[in-house]
This record gives sequence, structure tokens and C-alpha cells, in this order.
Amino acid sequence: MPTNPRTHIVTSYGDELRRLRDMIARMGGLAERQVADSVDALMRRDSVLAAEVVARDAALDGMEREVEQYCVRLLALRQPMAADLRLIIACMKISQDLERIGDYARNGAKRAIVVSQQPRMGSLNGFGRMAELVQENLKSAIDALVENDAAKADAVWANDEPIDGIYNGIFREMLTFMMEDARNITAATHLLFIAKNLERIGDHATNIAERVHFAVLGEALTDERPKADISSSAVVNPPG
Amino acid sequence: MPTNPRTHIVTSYGDELRRLRDMIARMGGLAERQVADSVDALMRRDSVLAAEVVARDAALDGMEREVEQYCVRLLALRQPMAADLRLIIACMKISQDLERIGDYARNGAKRAIVVSQQPRMGSLNGFGRMAELVQENLKSAIDALVENDAAKADAVWANDEPIDGIYNGIFREMLTFMMEDARNITAATHLLFIAKNLERIGDHATNIAERVHFAVLGEALTDERPKADISSSAVVNPPG
Repeated sequence: MPTNPRTHIVTSYGDELRRLRDMIARMGGLAERQVADSVDALMRRDSVLAAEVVARDAALDGMEREVEQYCVRLLALRQPMAADLRLIIACMKISQDLERIGDYARNGAKRAIVVSQQPRMGSLNGFGRMAELVQENLKSAIDALVENDAAKADAVWANDEPIDGIYNGIFREMLTFMMEDARNITAATHLLFIAKNLERIGDHATNIAERVHFAVLGEALTDERPKADISSSAVVNPPG
Repeated sequence: MPTNPRTHIVTSYGDELRRLRDMIARMGGLAERQVADSVDALMRRDSVLAAEVVARDAALDGMEREVEQYCVRLLALRQPMAADLRLIIACMKISQDLERIGDYARNGAKRAIVVSQQPRMGSLNGFGRMAELVQENLKSAIDALVENDAAKADAVWANDEPIDGIYNGIFREMLTFMMEDARNITAATHLLFIAKNLERIGDHATNIAERVHFAVLGEALTDERPKADISSSAVVNPPG
């Protein structure tokens, strides 16, 4: 342990915790951009942008490793207690959520390339709307961490339901497209997975919000989260 | 800090780390069972078993919270360093992987109930084979943790490729079933997601193996993992 006067340790430790929050904020910003660009690439049939999203994912993987190393260093050198310990553990977990969000965006971008080469099918507006809501939640969850604001985190947590609602609509719509014309099946299948990816990204945003709530207040959100994804029980029948 | 003599602390600390490994081993055992039962329920069209899998998932969620609380307590009270610190962090992350595996099994069980009410389509043997391989990898990864055996972990890491191979085959098969008969579309869509869930469970087993490797040796597996999931670029055309 360093033998510096207490005030010096405190200042520098405070700087380290601020730096940790900044690392997460930067990582969150990149994850948001990856989600936005992967859905833009889908809607504009832009394979070049989709390829950029795929290439950019390695940066998120690197940032996750950096956050983990930084947290391990803080745990070993600073032996944090209470709120600081909770913050460091939350940041490690949040970086894992953000890395997974990046994986979903990359997977969506790969599928967007295939979809752009298939026949057009209806409007993809539902995807745009889903992406917007997911990004808003992700941004608010990260802001809640940076501002140490449990109420802001709780608002995200309650805000996942509309995303599930759009997802259920897309699920039924895609099955209907498939039934109308077998030539839609490849594109509709990839679109189903893209919608599922967005729904999972939304779940990770609420996970982040839960972790922020716990880090700030030291107690878990105990209520069962409002959850409206009923697609795993959906049945759609062919016309006629 | 306790003021007990050092030997007493060491013994009791060793017991605590053993207990942590046991908690993960128990959680891993339940996760394996959930995966096995969800695929059994699918193959035997057994909705009762599927409903049991859905109900049993809450136990895994509870175990994850227990592991996290135990780890936070160890970090705060024991201020572990080096290998012990790595083990504790690995266990926290592994419990998160196991909780996610449970979510995938529960989701698969829900879909199995829908599939059991739809027309039969071909053989589901690919699902059985995928589930077996995934379970083997999961079991080996947890054994590697309990036995502190990096070589065993590395073997799992290299063993994910055949799972991806079966998944790619199922993906094309399901799209073909959909194209042959629109009445297959609901079941085939749910089966696609079940196969994707199994593939993701396999990924989590390799994540666990990577975490064990790092916990034991203190350095990350740096090689790019052999990865053969090409389904996100797959195109299947209707016959004729």
C-alpha cells in the first residue's frame, strides 16, 4: 500500500473511479453507434456501412478487456469497500453487457448485407423505431451510471415494454411474409433474427440499469420487470 | 479486519474459496439439466417436462445472486490478490454465463410447447446431437474450474466448432421445410430459434472455459477461437 497522506490517496482514488466511469461512457457511446449504424445499414441497404460495423466490433472487445484489467487493478490496489466496491463490480458487468450489445449489432450488420441482396419486403420502419427506443434506453442507462442517478436507471428499467411490443409485431409480420411467398423466406428469417437481436440489446440496456440501481443504492430492484415479449409462444397460420 | 492468527484466516479462507467453487459446480449441474430437459421435452413433444424447465429457471437466477453476494463479501473481507482475486472474478462472471444458459433453456422449453402442437417435421436428431455436445462442453468447463485445470479448459475452447456445424445444417434444413410447405413456418421458426439458443449456450460454455483458463494461468487465451457459424450469411432459395 502507498504511504502517501490520506488526502492524496483519496484524490487520486477519486480520479481513478471517475476514469472508470469515463471508460464505460466511451464504450457505451461506441455501442450506441454500432446499434444505430447496423440498423441504418439495414434500412438503406448499405453494405459498405454494414461492413464498417462488423470491422469496428473489435474495438468494443478491446475496451471490455481494458475495463476488466482496470477494475482488477483497482480491486487489488485500492481494496475498495461498500459503494466503491459495488461501482467497480457494476462497471465490470456493464462492460460485458456492452460487449454483448456490440456482438448483436455486428451480427445484425452481417445479416443486413444478406437482406440487401434479397427481394424487398414491406417497410422496415418497425426496425428503425425499435432501434431508436433501444438506443434511448442504452443512453439513459449509461447516463445514470455517469451521474450516479438511481431514479434515471429505474426509468429505463420500466421502459423496455414498448420494445417488446414492436418485436412481437415484427415477429408476426415476418411469418406472414414467409407464408405469402416462399421467396421471402431467406430475408424474413434474417430479419427475424435482427429483430430478436434488437430485443436482446434492449434487455441488456435494462440489465445495465439494474446494475446502476444496485451500485448507487446497494439494494436490488426486486419487482418483476414488466415484460411483454410473447413471441416465443406465437403461432401464425398460413392464409386460407 | 478479523484479528485471528494468520493460520486460522488462511484455513477458513481456503474453505470459502472451495465453497465458492462448489456453488458454481452446483449451479453448473442445474444448468446442464435444464439444457438436457428442454431438448428432451422438444424431441418427445412433452409439454409437462417443458413447463417444469420454465418453472425451474428461477432457481438459477437465485443461485446467481447468491454467488455474487458471496463474491462481494469475499472481496470486501478477504481483499484477495493474484490467483484468488482472478478466481473470484471468474466465478462471478461464470455465474452470469450459467444464468444466461438457463434463460436460453427456458426460452427453448417455451418454444418446445408451441412446436409440440404443430405438424411434425422430419427428425429432430440434430437438436439431440447439438444438446449432447453443448452439455459435454459445459460439464468439462465446470470440471476445469473445480479441478483448477487449464488444459481441460483449453480443450473445451477448441471443441465448439462441431456445434456450429450442426447449427448451420439445421438452419438450412428449417428454411427448406418452410419453403416446401407454408404450414411448417410456425414450427420451423421456433425450431430455428431453439437451434440458435443451443449454439449460444455452446458459446457461453467456451466463455466459461476462457474464464477458467485466465483464472488458472493469469493470461488470456489470445488465439482467435475456431468459429464455424456461417448462418448469419446463409441464403436458401425456394425449389424450382
